[in-house]
Amino acid sequence: MRKASSIVALLTDFGLHDHYVGTMKAVMLSIEPSLTILDITHEVQPQNVRQASYLLWAAYRYFPKQTLFVCVVDPAVGTSRRIIVVRTSQWTFLAPDAGLLDIVLSQEKAESAVAVDIGRLKQDGSISPLVSSTFHGRDVFAPVAARIARGARLTALGDPITLAEAPPAFVSEGTPHVRPSILHIDRFGNIITNVSGRDREFIGRSVRGIGIRRHAVTRWSQNYESAPAETPCLMIGSSGLVEIAVKRGSAADLLKVDLTTPLRVLSK
Amino acid sequence: MRKASSIVALLTDFGLHDHYVGTMKAVMLSIEPSLTILDITHEVQPQNVRQASYLLWAAYRYFPKQTLFVCVVDPAVGTSRRIIVVRTSQWTFLAPDAGLLDIVLSQEKAESAVAVDIGRLKQDGSISPLVSSTFHGRDVFAPVAARIARGARLTALGDPITLAEAPPAFVSEGTPHVRPSILHIDRFGNIITNVSGRDREFIGRSVRGIGIRRHAVTRWSQNYESAPAETPCLMIGSSGLVEIAVKRGSAADLLKVDLTTPLRVLSK
Amino acid sequence: MRKASSIVALLTDFGLHDHYVGTMKAVMLSIEPSLTILDITHEVQPQNVRQASYLLWAAYRYFPKQTLFVCVVDPAVGTSRRIIVVRTSQWTFLAPDAGLLDIVLSQEKAESAVAVDIGRLKQDGSISPLVSSTFHGRDVFAPVAARIARGARLTALGDPITLAEAPPAFVSEGTPHVRPSILHIDRFGNIITNVSGRDREFIGRSVRGIGIRRHAVTRWSQNYESAPAETPCLMIGSSGLVEIAVKRGSAADLLKVDLTTPLRVLSK
Repeated sequence: MRKASSIVALLTDFGLHDHYVGTMKAVMLSIEPSLTILDITHEVQPQNVRQASYLLWAAYRYFPKQTLFVCVVDPAVGTSRRIIVVRTSQWTFLAPDAGLLDIVLSQEKAESAVAVDIGRLKQDGSISPLVSSTFHGRDVFAPVAARIARGARLTALGDPITLAEAPPAFVSEGTPHVRPSILHIDRFGNIITNVSGRDREFIGRSVRGIGIRRHAVTRWSQNYESAPAETPCLMIGSSGLVEIAVKRGSAADLLKVDLTTPLRVLSK
Repeated sequence: MRKASSIVALLTDFGLHDHYVGTMKAVMLSIEPSLTILDITHEVQPQNVRQASYLLWAAYRYFPKQTLFVCVVDPAVGTSRRIIVVRTSQWTFLAPDAGLLDIVLSQEKAESAVAVDIGRLKQDGSISPLVSSTFHGRDVFAPVAARIARGARLTALGDPITLAEAPPAFVSEGTPHVRPSILHIDRFGNIITNVSGRDREFIGRSVRGIGIRRHAVTRWSQNYESAPAETPCLMIGSSGLVEIAVKRGSAADLLKVDLTTPLRVLSK
Repeated sequence: MRKASSIVALLTDFGLHDHYVGTMKAVMLSIEPSLTILDITHEVQPQNVRQASYLLWAAYRYFPKQTLFVCVVDPAVGTSRRIIVVRTSQWTFLAPDAGLLDIVLSQEKAESAVAVDIGRLKQDGSISPLVSSTFHGRDVFAPVAARIARGARLTALGDPITLAEAPPAFVSEGTPHVRPSILHIDRFGNIITNVSGRDREFIGRSVRGIGIRRHAVTRWSQNYESAPAETPCLMIGSSGLVEIAVKRGSAADLLKVDLTTPLRVLSK
């Protein structure tokens, strides 16, 4: 039997103003008191699955092997949308089947996947027969997560499924159809784009900069402090993506950008 | 001797912008390093005891047996207001004696209760003689909580008290004098009312909807996604209360509601 | 060998909207799974080293002996600014060398200190050769913290340094050159000043009040509740500093104050 996870990482859009996150943790610890529960963040913009997909991807590699990631950004809660469990060689992911794992799965191979069978889990007592239609985080995700963490076989949770191949996530050489966009704006106002900065040759050869409305951001900087004052600069951020930053200021405020603002890649 | 609690759940209006919550946890772990401390939330509106009472009630049932709930929403800190410990068959609650436990105690039977005797605890060394007059969370609640968690008898903390019977908390059949009101607005802008949705017959027979200012919200929906767009709908929320929600939007923003906005129950 | 720390306390300006804090914790737990990680706060105003210095000082004494404090407010990340480890008789501090420890070190004696040698740690495998230039929290602070917590000798992390003596932090008798200022504004809008209230004689003899713009705040109160309504009052706060508070309201809002607003001490 697979060794149980002792670390559960949570990613939700629940915020911290309500009892929602605490209640999910309470349910998990009621079932498996030895769990260590870590928060990735709970401040995903409400219902923004794409931002959640980025945040999960940016964080997951740094978690211990066997970590179980429980991701609840779930506009369709209470409908018939599926909840899936996906296992890769090193990690396990529990999420609504709505694109939240797309970026991770564009880079990780799924070894197995199942769709959670709520009916079956009600019958075998793994989850309560009184599942609410608005808080599956508490009533489905948390008890299922605790069972996975205790070492339940995935096929005990539901039938195997085949996942569609995840589309390429980042703008880079060889992904001409990926549309440039903003994945996230962080607390400092840094604008994280989906343009990959890993392939320095591609960047050097092809990318003059990023266009946002009438602004062309074309100046590169190595770090925040060495950038000129009040000037949006391009950087390769800590996850290898191109980001736009302003020294000791907020690029998002300066450029009046939100997550929906369109981007252009300016070619050389 | 009663088995000690190993889980402490915190509920405060301290927010997370200050060192207050971290310092409370530090004091508890200094006394009892084996504690597991869970946050319900710290974002109760400053001094809003009623909202705190709701959040505690919405969460407490999901915590492991023996959990100790430490609740600090305490406008009268530093005055002679009492701090009480209340034990029910399964849980223990530590809070200022100002209504914070009202909703829980409208549904749970108190088996014993004491008023914390700060003078006595200073004398026996359980708390420091240098209690501040503005931060009892750190100087009284945290050390008392750690002692309770270690298994201290309640009568070692102060003299037994008799609690007044808690008034009914929710609007339902047979509680004609409870005034309809908003208990909480969550991160998604869902408006949680004090109208019970548990008694479906009562709702079906008597409740046409909820009135807020000139709006009459009368349309019911099973979950968020199946509601019509931009239309406030009634739902039975995850705690069994009637709430007003808008699909992928904020009911509170749409209806311009805050915690003080009055409600009417519209009769059939 | 010194006993290892099992508690790590975090203080950053990362906020909780991103994956930054979760990722730092993940890295630490990957190296040392037995750690207990506590948050002081992550809501330091971006790049505000002085506010961070206050928050660390207000909290540190309440943490268990041997706690390791990891403080990341680091505008100069990615430049050649030093990262230092400072050990006092009871605690260890890891921080950028930019004033963050100033208030603590105005009151605690450093027993030893080293400057983290990133090159050496890359070579011995303690940190990854792929250190980003924008997220040293994840790539340097977290792995170094985990090594310290596991009991690494400080001299294994870098060469010993001699710290300049920390300047006096608070306005009090005998510190005529300390400029009065606001250290922090808390969630309740209480304005925490750098005027010490510990020396009641000095206060009683010399301090008539605090001047902010055209306001003279001269009325003292013992606690929030006993203050008159809507009137800014002076209190000795829970850390022994003079603060300005308004009963059930926000002094900062009422006086339109932010962290940069200048203060005057009004003499008798």
